[in-house]
Amino acid sequence: MRYGHFDDAAREYVIDTPATPLPWINYLGNESFFSLISNTGGGYSFYKDAKLRRITRYRYNGVPFDNGARSYYVTLMNGDGPDAKPIETFSPTFLPAKTPLDRYECRHGIGYTVFEAQKSGIATRLTAFVPLGANAEVNRLDITNVNGAPKTVDVTGCVEWCLWNAVDDASNFQRNLSTGEVEVERLEDATILYHKTEFKERRNHYAFYGVNAPVVGFDTSRDEFLGQFNGWDTPQVIAEGKAHDSVAHGWYPIAANRVRVTVDPGETKTLVFTLGYIEVPDDQKWEDPTDPAKVGIINKKPAHELFSRFNSAAEVDKALSELKDYWNGLLSTYSVSSGDARLDRMVNIWHQYQCMVTFNMSRSASYYESGMGRGMGFRDSNQDLLGFVHLVPERARERIIDIASTQMEDGSAWHQYQPLTKKGNADIGGGFNDDPLWLIAGVNAYLAETGDASILTEPVPFNNVEGSEVPLLEHLRRSANFTMSHLGPHRLPLIGRADWNDCLNLNCFSSTPGESFQTVENNDTGVAESVFIGGMFVLYGGQYADILAHYGEACGMSADAVADEVATVRGAIDDMTEAVKTAGWDGEWFVRAYDAYSRPVGSHTDTEGQIYIEPQGMCVMAGIGLDDGKAQEALKSVREKLTCEWGTAILAPAYSTYRIELGEISSYPRGYKENGGIFCHNNPWISIANAVAGNDEEAFAVYRRNCPAWLEDKSEIRKVEPYVYCQMVAGPESPTPGEGKNSWLTGTAAWTFVDVSQYLLGVRPTLDGLAIEPHLPAEYTDLTVTRVYRGVTYTIKLERTGSRSLTVNGSPVEGNVVPVPADGSTSVDVVVTF
Amino acid sequence: MRYGHFDDAAREYVIDTPATPLPWINYLGNESFFSLISNTGGGYSFYKDAKLRRITRYRYNGVPFDNGARSYYVTLMNGDGPDAKPIETFSPTFLPAKTPLDRYECRHGIGYTVFEAQKSGIATRLTAFVPLGANAEVNRLDITNVNGAPKTVDVTGCVEWCLWNAVDDASNFQRNLSTGEVEVERLEDATILYHKTEFKERRNHYAFYGVNAPVVGFDTSRDEFLGQFNGWDTPQVIAEGKAHDSVAHGWYPIAANRVRVTVDPGETKTLVFTLGYIEVPDDQKWEDPTDPAKVGIINKKPAHELFSRFNSAAEVDKALSELKDYWNGLLSTYSVSSGDARLDRMVNIWHQYQCMVTFNMSRSASYYESGMGRGMGFRDSNQDLLGFVHLVPERARERIIDIASTQMEDGSAWHQYQPLTKKGNADIGGGFNDDPLWLIAGVNAYLAETGDASILTEPVPFNNVEGSEVPLLEHLRRSANFTMSHLGPHRLPLIGRADWNDCLNLNCFSSTPGESFQTVENNDTGVAESVFIGGMFVLYGGQYADILAHYGEACGMSADAVADEVATVRGAIDDMTEAVKTAGWDGEWFVRAYDAYSRPVGSHTDTEGQIYIEPQGMCVMAGIGLDDGKAQEALKSVREKLTCEWGTAILAPAYSTYRIELGEISSYPRGYKENGGIFCHNNPWISIANAVAGNDEEAFAVYRRNCPAWLEDKSEIRKVEPYVYCQMVAGPESPTPGEGKNSWLTGTAAWTFVDVSQYLLGVRPTLDGLAIEPHLPAEYTDLTVTRVYRGVTYTIKLERTGSRSLTVNGSPVEGNVVPVPADGSTSVDVVVTF
Repeated sequence: MRYGHFDDAAREYVIDTPATPLPWINYLGNESFFSLISNTGGGYSFYKDAKLRRITRYRYNGVPFDNGARSYYVTLMNGDGPDAKPIETFSPTFLPAKTPLDRYECRHGIGYTVFEAQKSGIATRLTAFVPLGANAEVNRLDITNVNGAPKTVDVTGCVEWCLWNAVDDASNFQRNLSTGEVEVERLEDATILYHKTEFKERRNHYAFYGVNAPVVGFDTSRDEFLGQFNGWDTPQVIAEGKAHDSVAHGWYPIAANRVRVTVDPGETKTLVFTLGYIEVPDDQKWEDPTDPAKVGIINKKPAHELFSRFNSAAEVDKALSELKDYWNGLLSTYSVSSGDARLDRMVNIWHQYQCMVTFNMSRSASYYESGMGRGMGFRDSNQDLLGFVHLVPERARERIIDIASTQMEDGSAWHQYQPLTKKGNADIGGGFNDDPLWLIAGVNAYLAETGDASILTEPVPFNNVEGSEVPLLEHLRRSANFTMSHLGPHRLPLIGRADWNDCLNLNCFSSTPGESFQTVENNDTGVAESVFIGGMFVLYGGQYADILAHYGEACGMSADAVADEVATVRGAIDDMTEAVKTAGWDGEWFVRAYDAYSRPVGSHTDTEGQIYIEPQGMCVMAGIGLDDGKAQEALKSVREKLTCEWGTAILAPAYSTYRIELGEISSYPRGYKENGGIFCHNNPWISIANAVAGNDEEAFAVYRRNCPAWLEDKSEIRKVEPYVYCQMVAGPESPTPGEGKNSWLTGTAAWTFVDVSQYLLGVRPTLDGLAIEPHLPAEYTDLTVTRVYRGVTYTIKLERTGSRSLTVNGSPVEGNVVPVPADGSTSVDVVVTF
Repeated sequence: MRYGHFDDAAREYVIDTPATPLPWINYLGNESFFSLISNTGGGYSFYKDAKLRRITRYRYNGVPFDNGARSYYVTLMNGDGPDAKPIETFSPTFLPAKTPLDRYECRHGIGYTVFEAQKSGIATRLTAFVPLGANAEVNRLDITNVNGAPKTVDVTGCVEWCLWNAVDDASNFQRNLSTGEVEVERLEDATILYHKTEFKERRNHYAFYGVNAPVVGFDTSRDEFLGQFNGWDTPQVIAEGKAHDSVAHGWYPIAANRVRVTVDPGETKTLVFTLGYIEVPDDQKWEDPTDPAKVGIINKKPAHELFSRFNSAAEVDKALSELKDYWNGLLSTYSVSSGDARLDRMVNIWHQYQCMVTFNMSRSASYYESGMGRGMGFRDSNQDLLGFVHLVPERARERIIDIASTQMEDGSAWHQYQPLTKKGNADIGGGFNDDPLWLIAGVNAYLAETGDASILTEPVPFNNVEGSEVPLLEHLRRSANFTMSHLGPHRLPLIGRADWNDCLNLNCFSSTPGESFQTVENNDTGVAESVFIGGMFVLYGGQYADILAHYGEACGMSADAVADEVATVRGAIDDMTEAVKTAGWDGEWFVRAYDAYSRPVGSHTDTEGQIYIEPQGMCVMAGIGLDDGKAQEALKSVREKLTCEWGTAILAPAYSTYRIELGEISSYPRGYKENGGIFCHNNPWISIANAVAGNDEEAFAVYRRNCPAWLEDKSEIRKVEPYVYCQMVAGPESPTPGEGKNSWLTGTAAWTFVDVSQYLLGVRPTLDGLAIEPHLPAEYTDLTVTRVYRGVTYTIKLERTGSRSLTVNGSPVEGNVVPVPADGSTSVDVVVTF
């Protein structure tokens, strides 16, 4: 069942009903100010860090769910006087008022969302977005009178303030209920309500919510606004038809502006509500620090400046248009015309958009990630890069430097770091032994995309310690050496606290309820090994050797030193390949790991957890077993033992009991999350592995099983948004197979984009240039990929002929790499037959 | 304005309306299982630890507020068949259904709450309590048909499960939404819904919610129960008139039992809903671990045993009656008959009840303390003892040992410890230099109450390290020595991180927004001093000397050693007294402290924060300045500069700007909390100080300004419950003077009970026996205090004659201490004139 449709021309998903199986959300903002917005107007806003600079409050456990974020109430009044009474109220976003609408439509676009609603002759259109270069969410509301008589309409816009720190805001009530402070500013042509809690003390930032019109009333006290016992659906002031002009002192500060408009038949009136975040230098915090009567009155100048940028419909139009242009530019970097709308809309629009969002958010703020906890992941962010680097390479470069700066001198890494401070997160610590290798993956992707070798000589510190800077290339060396110097009894890499699968905790035995498996003592005894990291080393160690070979001399190494080190690394790769093929091979698939007792994990010798997906994907992607049939055998086992209509499960059979020696993985109910769920992140590894192994049909089938656009018709089962990937789909052994969870913020986005863009459509940046080698199923015969790469626009025709060839600007070329145009031309025509 | 009245005979506060200014709550449970319950049925339950063993979910920030705890829906049906439809639904607790009631009454009793409601001819009576010795909350619901025709009524009882760890439950959604597991058991005469999330793995506990009747349906999925967009007021299954028999897999597990009863005119039907918590040994977790078909099926035997104890009205009656008897016994320890109902009801009922609750909860779980954070406070728990020790001395003894076990070898202490583990809380650490002395206060109170000197030789470890045990007396010595060996330039005690006022942070400079002042780096440079701790040392150092003198030899010390040490301590007290009178005296009041630059805090030399309440109260309580007029002068300054009709503010003038050298105190808006609020905890110090100084009228006036029973008529301003103390009342410099916050869990309870029972009514336990010395205002002329003390019941008549005398069993006695009856008699008649 569908709840909407794709509007590919507008690059929008159009939702027809508020009653989607779950809130279907969108993200606003690209740089510092971000908002989540659901198809009923729910969500919240923050500046850079969803924990430390939360601007508006959200209730993840709220009942009713998803209310109170940006609440708009459109009230038809029975007159224009001070005693006018309300006739009927609805919300342009359906919630919170819940009034059944005559018309409802929510259009999630790329960086903006539009709600169209109609009730009793009043039509509304609410456009929400974060303009480029502005720390503000703009909400433009158009109100149109679509029937025969003039109407007086009161429009109330309301946001609820979070007291900045989202964790404290939800826990430290004995303090919080006494700290809230606001200011009210009624200007001739605008009204601005300020939230200045803790500005008095250590904060240099405040927020505001204004409207470009005088108000008939306002409220800043939630209790006054809602009244007792009421929810956001029926606030007391809405029922009464009159604001209370309340000024909050502590308790729950909000900002509610009530504007009255009279709309003639056919006429449209426009209001612009702006939610803004302001930082001021310490010496400019106050309006007039010398005047005792003005103690505590904030300096509003910067707020006025920001507010005035969007105080007319024309200015808002212009800002939205700039935002769309910006995205048009980004999305032109990679596009396909395949004849299949599902493929095109995912590749050209939604998938790349999701890659940007995951790059921005890491795993911090979604409808499943509360934004209260973890920061950026070392592993996550490196992988997020893979799907993002082509969009804005400069930001990827900056991120790489940030990530590498949290690496330790021995090559290990903090597992997470805080986006605001960029420092390693000591609560989580390190010891995740896959982390270092992901840095190579990220840097390799950046180099392949840009050819910008200057990044390799960029001085980057260890653990953010000033003075410890070494060239980035040295960080990669430490990464590779870390694996090479941490091998276990089978010459496989030690797993440490965990590898990519954070829930396979082979050294972290926990028997205390509720204890975090990620922070419990790591009893690493030097025995537990990861076949998965073995595969990673073959793949990313190889990338490191390639980087050395390409750029080592340019980085100041002698030719001999390069040759020596490349030989050493390649020797280690050969040894690792051998170890994986022997100790790492179970007979029909790759073993997952060895536990702290040196027993195999992911082996037919066990009754449960016999086969895991990760080593099959990673080892075959690395090329292990392509030469001796093991790759094909492993992929066959994946198809037969792990795959169902909803995708490929992470393991089977799921664990029915808790195994202390395996950790969190066995803590989940069967079929969910890491215990037998379809953990989508690793499904593209299987797709890529099949492509690498030449199984093109299966490669695409794996892609399709997980691809949102193909699952749109099953939205009542999948539940999550049909335009984005989710982290996990309940597996075949669960009671609810196909049910998706944790949409948006998942490495699935980046990895599946690598899969579809570089392996299935086969347009892959390499250190040598753009390689083209499609792996597509029979039904795809003629496609065009447009790729802007290192400043050159490649128009690439893919034609199914049954034999492989490459023609560049009409001339045949050997191999699959398109040479960089020698004549400096900025567009190249490529034809690839396959 | 009142919202109810005291029913002194029943020991209940009777609330007439659901629309109290804030939820007015009660506490159920005395030992391990606790519930909070508001006058509309809100709240939550937990086992021992509100963070780690949260049983039901609560939303502190919920909108609408205070819904969803224990939700009961009484639905009048239009028939008895499977297709019967709902006519009307109401909640016996008003919320969540919100249906206006024909009658509403909430009676908060001592350990139980009763709701009486009536709507459309159906009367309900819901009785909620935690029986003695049971890890369960029992909800007995009586349904009476009060009009003329038989009625079919569906009763739905619902609780929402918390996934055990209250912090994770409110943040870790990416995991939590996949972990929820339940079981449903439909027996012939009962229905029990089980919550077993994480029982599969490391938990040895589950919860259940059962009803002593077969159900017509059930739900364990919140989404199924509520439906989309609905709140707890209008669940979908209630609107439909039919349960969905849903089984939750992840998401939001609940337990909802729907029972159908037919009630004839005049008839009453009774249902018993029981919420239970079960722990099972690891080897008995499962129903049948040998049967593969029963993998994951929990062992329900212990649940059946607990459930069956309360599965009839008669058994519930018996359990409630036992609970009331228990409390009658406790409250008979101290009672007064004064002729003033306000004084009697506070002293005899509510005040002692609140002392028990604060002893049980410390500062963990209230409607302001989220139960997510801190554990037991070293300082807090020692002070809580002071008002509790007479009720259950054995529990006070146990608590003292727990607290002392977290002391360090140098006499310092962890500031907090977790109730479940009893270990010091490393997140908060130590360095609060008043902490050690409070241990002497607690032990002295225990000794004065019981005379049980054996506690002094009890072996008690340092920092819970096995093998480090020394006699408790040695801990007291370390406490005293800690102060004596940590003096600053004015020979006043160093303040460390903070003293009693956690928000006066003289060594903890913070400029980072949101950073905790309690955990930011402590830059103690050995300069910042506390006059308050100086006063404490004079008082509690003196108590330590008394303990030594009384019990030193019994503890194995030689008479010489005792004399030497007593002399040393008394010498230090004399020195401290001198330091307080010189460096600690500002001219008209005691200085509060010296900051890290050795500048006085709480001095007329400053423009704000000129006078603080704490040193005035503590120093005069310690007797400092009674001999030279400084005490009277300080108390006069308190009256003139800090006191308003709502009580005595903590300081004046409030700080208008942030002062980094003072810390959190200046972070609050003016007039709130530590920045000029009426911080009630220290008001009794002023009352006691006035009593000690002989200002009896003012001593009682201070008591009365803060006493809830005197403020009942102003409940619309005070807002919090009129039967308990609150931590803070907005001060005279705030925009909302008189507004109370943070009710229930406050040291105000213990200290004010010390004040009223030991100083105003003047019946004070000492190491030598019961001392009697009333300090009452003129209007109190004839009173009787009954006090059970060391096994003897003292009936004490207080008669105003204008001259002081003491008569015991008819014979005059010198001094004010009643001798312990030499003849072993268990009742003594005392007459005191004053």
